[in-house]
Amino acid sequence: MKILLVGASGTLGMAVRKELGNRHEIIAAGRSSGDVRVDLTDESSIKAMLDKIGTVDAIASTAGHVTFAPLAKLDAAAFAVGLNDKLMGQVNLVQQGVAHLVDGGSFTLIGGILSEHPIIAGVSASMVNAALEGFVRAAAIELPRGVRINVVSPTVLVESMDQYGPFFRGFEPAPAFRVGLAYSRSIEGAGTGQVLKVY
Amino acid sequence: MKILLVGASGTLGMAVRKELGNRHEIIAAGRSSGDVRVDLTDESSIKAMLDKIGTVDAIASTAGHVTFAPLAKLDAAAFAVGLNDKLMGQVNLVQQGVAHLVDGGSFTLIGGILSEHPIIAGVSASMVNAALEGFVRAAAIELPRGVRINVVSPTVLVESMDQYGPFFRGFEPAPAFRVGLAYSRSIEGAGTGQVLKVY
Repeated sequence: MKILLVGASGTLGMAVRKELGNRHEIIAAGRSSGDVRVDLTDESSIKAMLDKIGTVDAIASTAGHVTFAPLAKLDAAAFAVGLNDKLMGQVNLVQQGVAHLVDGGSFTLIGGILSEHPIIAGVSASMVNAALEGFVRAAAIELPRGVRINVVSPTVLVESMDQYGPFFRGFEPAPAFRVGLAYSRSIEGAGTGQVLKVY
Repeated sequence: MKILLVGASGTLGMAVRKELGNRHEIIAAGRSSGDVRVDLTDESSIKAMLDKIGTVDAIASTAGHVTFAPLAKLDAAAFAVGLNDKLMGQVNLVQQGVAHLVDGGSFTLIGGILSEHPIIAGVSASMVNAALEGFVRAAAIELPRGVRINVVSPTVLVESMDQYGPFFRGFEPAPAFRVGLAYSRSIEGAGTGQVLKVY
C-alpha cells in the first residue's frame, strides 16, 4: 500500500511509521518536515499536497493542535485553535482527500481519550475529540466507493509523560507502539465508522 | 426558580415552557421573539441579553442551527454554520452565563441523537452534537460554585415528522413533552456532565 501520513515526525507519527513502514510505502507529510509539506489549517496547502502525491491507498493523520487552558480562561479564540486545526484540519483533509483515494481506501484520524474522560484544562480537547468521533461515525455511511474512515483515540502516551503526566494523573499511559497497532487495524483491517480506543 | 430559556418559541422551547412554566418563572429568549432577544452567534448579543436579565437559577438552550447536506457537498462554510451557531453559540452562552448563575445553578444545552446514530446528510449535526457532549462532560468538572451542566439529546420529534421524517426513516420519534421532562431532570435534578438521551 501507498500511505500518506500527515504528522509523520511526531511521537505518534513515528510509531505509525515503525508499525507500517516495513510492509508499505509511507509518504511522510508535516508542517516543517517530511516528503511533502502541509498546513492542515490552510485548505490550499492541503490541495497542493494532495495534487503532489496523486492517488494513495490510505490517508492517515496524527496531526492536530488544541489549546489546553482552564475553562474560565478559554475564550472563543482559544476554542478556535482546536476547531480550525485538529478538527477542521482533519475534516478538510478527508473532504479533499477522498478524490485521491483508491476504491476501498481508508482515512484514519487522530482523536483522544479526553472525548470520554475529561481532565482539568482539557475542555477544548474533549470537545474536538468528541466532534471527530461524531464526524467519523457519520462520514462512514456517506463516503463513496467503499472508502472507509476511523478515528484512533489514545490515552496519554508513555513517551509523553514527561510533558503531559501532571495533567493525566491516574491515567494509565500507553506505549506509542500500541497506537501504531490501532492505525494498522484501521488501515489494514476492514472496519469503518469506528473509534479505535487505545486505553 | 428563575430560568432563562434561549430558543423559547421553537417546538422544543414550548415543550420546556409547558413542563416547567407552572412551577418556575421562565424568561423567554429568542432571535426574533421573547422577553429578551439574542443572537447566539454574536458574543456581544449574548452579553447584552445577560446584562438585561441579571442573575438566574438556570440557563437552558433549545437553540442552534446546523446545515443538513450530503457529505460531498459540505464545504468549510457549511460546516462553519453548525460550529458557529449550535456549538460555539451554546458554548459562548455557558462561558458568559456562568457569572449570571446562582451557586448551584445549571446549564442545559441541546444536542441530538445524530451524535451516536448518523443519517445521510447529517454529518455536520453528528459532529456538532458529539462536540457538545464532549464539552459538557469536560466543563462539568471545571465549573465553579457547584454550577452544573448537562446536554439533552433527543431523537426526531413526533411534532417534526412532517419536516424531518424522510431523513429519519426507521427512527422512533419522541413527543416533545418527553424532551421537556429531560430539561426538568437537568434543571430540577442534581446531575452534571450528563447526556440526557430522549430515545
